Amino acid sequence: MKALVHDGGGQILLEDRPEPVVSLTTDAIVRMTKTTLCGTDLQILTGDTRYGAPGRVLGHEGVGVIHAKGADVRGFDVGDHVLIAGITSCGTCDYCLKQIYAHCREGGRILGRTIDGTQAEFVRIPHADNSLHAIPAVADEEALVTLSDILPTSFECSGVPVHIRPGRTVAIVGAGPIGLAALLMVRRQAPAAILMIDIDDNRLKVAATFGATAVVNSADEPVRDVVMALTRGQGVDIAIEAVGVIETFALCEKIVADGGTIANVGIHGTQVNLFLDRLGAAISP
Amino acid sequence: MKALVHDGGGQILLEDRPEPVVSLTTDAIVRMTKTTLCGTDLQILTGDTRYGAPGRVLGHEGVGVIHAKGADVRGFDVGDHVLIAGITSCGTCDYCLKQIYAHCREGGRILGRTIDGTQAEFVRIPHADNSLHAIPAVADEEALVTLSDILPTSFECSGVPVHIRPGRTVAIVGAGPIGLAALLMVRRQAPAAILMIDIDDNRLKVAATFGATAVVNSADEPVRDVVMALTRGQGVDIAIEAVGVIETFALCEKIVADGGTIANVGIHGTQVNLFLDRLGAAISP
Amino acid sequence: MKALVHDGGGQILLEDRPEPVVSLTTDAIVRMTKTTLCGTDLQILTGDTRYGAPGRVLGHEGVGVIHAKGADVRGFDVGDHVLIAGITSCGTCDYCLKQIYAHCREGGRILGRTIDGTQAEFVRIPHADNSLHAIPAVADEEALVTLSDILPTSFECSGVPVHIRPGRTVAIVGAGPIGLAALLMVRRQAPAAILMIDIDDNRLKVAATFGATAVVNSADEPVRDVVMALTRGQGVDIAIEAVGVIETFALCEKIVADGGTIANVGIHGTQVNLFLDRLGAAISP
Amino acid sequence: MKALVHDGGGQILLEDRPEPVVSLTTDAIVRMTKTTLCGTDLQILTGDTRYGAPGRVLGHEGVGVIHAKGADVRGFDVGDHVLIAGITSCGTCDYCLKQIYAHCREGGRILGRTIDGTQAEFVRIPHADNSLHAIPAVADEEALVTLSDILPTSFECSGVPVHIRPGRTVAIVGAGPIGLAALLMVRRQAPAAILMIDIDDNRLKVAATFGATAVVNSADEPVRDVVMALTRGQGVDIAIEAVGVIETFALCEKIVADGGTIANVGIHGTQVNLFLDRLGAAISP
Repeated sequence: MKALVHDGGGQILLEDRPEPVVSLTTDAIVRMTKTTLCGTDLQILTGDTRYGAPGRVLGHEGVGVIHAKGADVRGFDVGDHVLIAGITSCGTCDYCLKQIYAHCREGGRILGRTIDGTQAEFVRIPHADNSLHAIPAVADEEALVTLSDILPTSFECSGVPVHIRPGRTVAIVGAGPIGLAALLMVRRQAPAAILMIDIDDNRLKVAATFGATAVVNSADEPVRDVVMALTRGQGVDIAIEAVGVIETFALCEKIVADGGTIANVGIHGTQVNLFLDRLGAAISP
Repeated sequence: MKALVHDGGGQILLEDRPEPVVSLTTDAIVRMTKTTLCGTDLQILTGDTRYGAPGRVLGHEGVGVIHAKGADVRGFDVGDHVLIAGITSCGTCDYCLKQIYAHCREGGRILGRTIDGTQAEFVRIPHADNSLHAIPAVADEEALVTLSDILPTSFECSGVPVHIRPGRTVAIVGAGPIGLAALLMVRRQAPAAILMIDIDDNRLKVAATFGATAVVNSADEPVRDVVMALTRGQGVDIAIEAVGVIETFALCEKIVADGGTIANVGIHGTQVNLFLDRLGAAISP
Repeated sequence: MKALVHDGGGQILLEDRPEPVVSLTTDAIVRMTKTTLCGTDLQILTGDTRYGAPGRVLGHEGVGVIHAKGADVRGFDVGDHVLIAGITSCGTCDYCLKQIYAHCREGGRILGRTIDGTQAEFVRIPHADNSLHAIPAVADEEALVTLSDILPTSFECSGVPVHIRPGRTVAIVGAGPIGLAALLMVRRQAPAAILMIDIDDNRLKVAATFGATAVVNSADEPVRDVVMALTRGQGVDIAIEAVGVIETFALCEKIVADGGTIANVGIHGTQVNLFLDRLGAAISP
Repeated sequence: MKALVHDGGGQILLEDRPEPVVSLTTDAIVRMTKTTLCGTDLQILTGDTRYGAPGRVLGHEGVGVIHAKGADVRGFDVGDHVLIAGITSCGTCDYCLKQIYAHCREGGRILGRTIDGTQAEFVRIPHADNSLHAIPAVADEEALVTLSDILPTSFECSGVPVHIRPGRTVAIVGAGPIGLAALLMVRRQAPAAILMIDIDDNRLKVAATFGATAVVNSADEPVRDVVMALTRGQGVDIAIEAVGVIETFALCEKIVADGGTIANVGIHGTQVNLFLDRLGAAISP
């Protein structure tokens, strides 16, 4: 089969590989119909091999059709259309029982990193019963690819299930794909205000069409003053960091209310500064 | 009356001051019977005047007897024995309605800082109905002084009401008065293990008698290794920072489990390093 | 002034009454500009005097303008436009500190019941700082009347802040004003499905325009079968009772999922049957 | 092997049965070393066959040693000492992902009911990785039998993880094995008061030694008056029903505070009366 791999030197190559086979009775082999790229693919291009050894097939997102399955896969049959979870999980280990699936002892973020991924004609999915989702007949399968990783990441990491409620105020720092996905998730929870912050006016225009109640270009305006004016001097209840650099985390610290929460979605490559001498908010990474 | 004040230059003086009087109808005047010192008094001795302008009467803890009261104080009568909350609150402003009493628009941490405090024969308590607690006839009033500040601070900031539950593992970094008070609060919630960490063997001995299930002298032992051995390599579910310096916060980051929480109780005078590139835990300050 | 009172025999009368005056320093006198009727007014017409002794001025909802205030009212000035909370609260008693304002020791549901209400030219509001809300200059004051009672009741009692989340399924039994108000509140939290159940097709048509994802006329269709077909045989995660009779509560018990919640909003005049021998759901009244 | 079965007519018989064998790759066969009786065994004696067809091997509690296992059991090896969970769970189905393991699509309360149980020399445990727990070498295995069912039932159903906190008041109605187990669980969470209610003075004496702060014989004393005297007229924050009859549930309704919770642990054979016309508390079954 054809598969995309990286060579460890910053190149991504289209290679011929053998088709994967069922190796454990809980495996399924999925024939891929849709997949996509993630920010991690860009990091691989820069030679960052934390994302898998050279030669690894890339990708952790997508939809497809069950091509083969092990004897203990009970939830799916050959021919079923399935969504592949970006996070593989066994459902049984201590982390799974705590519902921290990303740290599953036999799974987690393994696709495209420690095992071959989805940017290929076929992929082996371990623990298929816990790591695939059935797709209803009427669904738009191209749209569903966003449910593998980008939307659930934005939903969970933005604190949507816990912190975003009617009446609260939210700022999202960063209007890239993850920040915009967070915006879509946040707005469904009906906070009182959603302020989108970026340095790119085009992205901010998209944010406005996606439901931001206010937008600020942080290159042009003093963001803290804008936030305090919008919130009677309290700051926002939830500041969502969706960039991953020191400056944007520091901005979140400046604009969050006492008693509020900073939800960190951005992937940071280095430590940041935590102003515990001034901060009265919680950090949820 | 006699009162303790600081001179702004590191000296604490015993002075004669006029007795306070009811100035608002929601005030009470309390005749002090017990008060105590806090770590903040030490900081004042070093000349740190964030804790009030020179000449301010010190103190925010204590018990006493209602000596006089304004017309709108409904919960107490002259002669009632009362505990003074370290945090004054109106019960009406936006912060009080969010139950963030420390930021009350007309109260908060004002005793001994922006208004005269409890280290005197009499003290004026604003918003008396919300800022005093009735003492039952049988109570040990000397012991109750610990309920003004040290025990509730340790209870709330340690995450006891939210995070400490049967089965969880806890480390407390710092076995000083706040850390030991946190230990007393934590143990009542019956976690699976409470590890106490300090550099003073005498304090660790006290911690053992207070209910720590393990103690570690971090000057002698590699704390991270001890924690990982005790927790099957996961780290502790809750790491409580009870010192307030960069190194102890960093230690908490090293020993907390993925999916765990660092509860910061220590008062930090400077920023700390937040290892977002590695950390999978929440910070609750 | 003119005021509506009931005579205890089922009649509502328009009478001349003296204007109320400030009697406590925390009182405000509000000149009413908008008020409305509640279901309780209908119950008074039937002679049910649980809602206040004969001669009591009716009403607990409305907006108006501050006409006079006591010396300790700090949040409002004469001339301010205000929304009157259907529930009066002191902010200080044990119930207020638990945020169960409806049971405030000096407040609660007292307007129109134990003190004169809002269906008059003026009303005295005790604990004005906690029982009034400022109206922004741009607000539609007629629409705001719904915020006195009907929308907050539907919001709180329907379990919206706690139970309604993305992905959950909801049924609302009763499409009267309270059920429809609950629908408006529920839909903002983006559950996966909202099923509206009533015996009146006109009301169900309104429900469909308000955002119900499905409607059932329980006089025509077997509701339990419809619910099970919509929920893969599990039942709904949240069943909201918005009628207040035995049959509708029993229906909620039949359609709620194991592990789900029945949120009781309806005011019941009698006991109901709780099928603890079969039920695996919680009841939140 | 020897096994206890019931004959459907109220008799329990010791019979010879074939040893169970691995039938699915996720099964384990456990050689029983300790088991026990549950209240359900008494119900079987009365001929109540809801608990399994005649001829079924009884029992759902116990500890033992892994005797054989299927190819996909990863967490245990032959010879490991294990605790058997009273509830079998697959870890994969919709109910398991909601953590409602008792309703697992392929498990739940099946031992001794729909599959042969633990009152035999050997038992087959489906989904062994999710349905067994490793026993540490130093553990008292006889004591651990209480962790199969009675203690977790009392812990979960009593609302301990959610409702029991420092400062709250608790009443437990019923001082039988389940009520006493609930007491042991409740006291670890350090509520302000635990009132034990029963009609048997001997049981109440045991309750006092187990940590009840007050006991009441409801045959001798007016329970509601006692509760109101102990709680300043508010009622208890949590009333735990640990009997399972109409009268004890009604008692819980009489003594629970507004804003409180009734936690139903008792297994009811019939419906009860829910006084929604008076009740201001939640029911968590």
